Amino acid sequence: MKENENARIGEGLPWDRVSDHLPFNADGLLPAIAQQHDTGEVLMLAWMNRESLEETVVTGRVCYFSRSRGKLWRKGESSGQVQHLVELRLDCDGDTLLLRVQQDGPACHTGRRSCFYNALRDGRVVVTDEPLIAPEELYGKK
Amino acid sequence: MKENENARIGEGLPWDRVSDHLPFNADGLLPAIAQQHDTGEVLMLAWMNRESLEETVVTGRVCYFSRSRGKLWRKGESSGQVQHLVELRLDCDGDTLLLRVQQDGPACHTGRRSCFYNALRDGRVVVTDEPLIAPEELYGKK
Repeated sequence: MKENENARIGEGLPWDRVSDHLPFNADGLLPAIAQQHDTGEVLMLAWMNRESLEETVVTGRVCYFSRSRGKLWRKGESSGQVQHLVELRLDCDGDTLLLRVQQDGPACHTGRRSCFYNALRDGRVVVTDEPLIAPEELYGKK
Repeated sequence: MKENENARIGEGLPWDRVSDHLPFNADGLLPAIAQQHDTGEVLMLAWMNRESLEETVVTGRVCYFSRSRGKLWRKGESSGQVQHLVELRLDCDGDTLLLRVQQDGPACHTGRRSCFYNALRDGRVVVTDEPLIAPEELYGKK
């Protein structure tokens, strides 16, 4: 990514060359921020390995790597709340991904639109949003 | 954070109780996303340890932990481009921080507003933004 620092707008490098050199961490992962593409809302942060990143780029449907389950996690596979990739971005040193997405319904397993519904206000961490859908409804019916 | 899942809007927990149980990773760090509070632009992702988080909450000026330098990194200490904390948010499992900030000038060491200036378009990773300030100007004069 270093080469892009001095590139002009619209200039850049082939994806294959960039992806071959991405600095995955010791667990083979990069953090990926999902942001609703039109409103700018930050929905969640999850992790991608090389395989989930390549799948996401090829299919346009966001696939993460679940650290707790130790396997690919096609967002929405249980809940039906799919993330469609609108644009993939990388930061200046290539070690964080920003996924600009179209999120169907809630991104959060609690049924809330965004996972970031806890805000520090006046010494307390308070809830800022209600679930759009009850979690039982998200995960109960398949 | 589990207790907040079923809380109503405005309900919550004392900050001390939440911060005592944050799931810092094996290196003692949590990822922190910085977002410009009014435009929604995602500016950067960096890391915080307990000390930098507490300092940020107390002072209202964002302090990270620099993994490369192995020490506290008061954003803007070299460049002058300070981040003022507007609101701290935590995600559903408390393992990611969202900093809603007022960013003075560029957030990126390249002089660009955001670190996420590399976009995948038509098989190439292209630059989307120009520096607001030349890096030499940001770091040259002290």
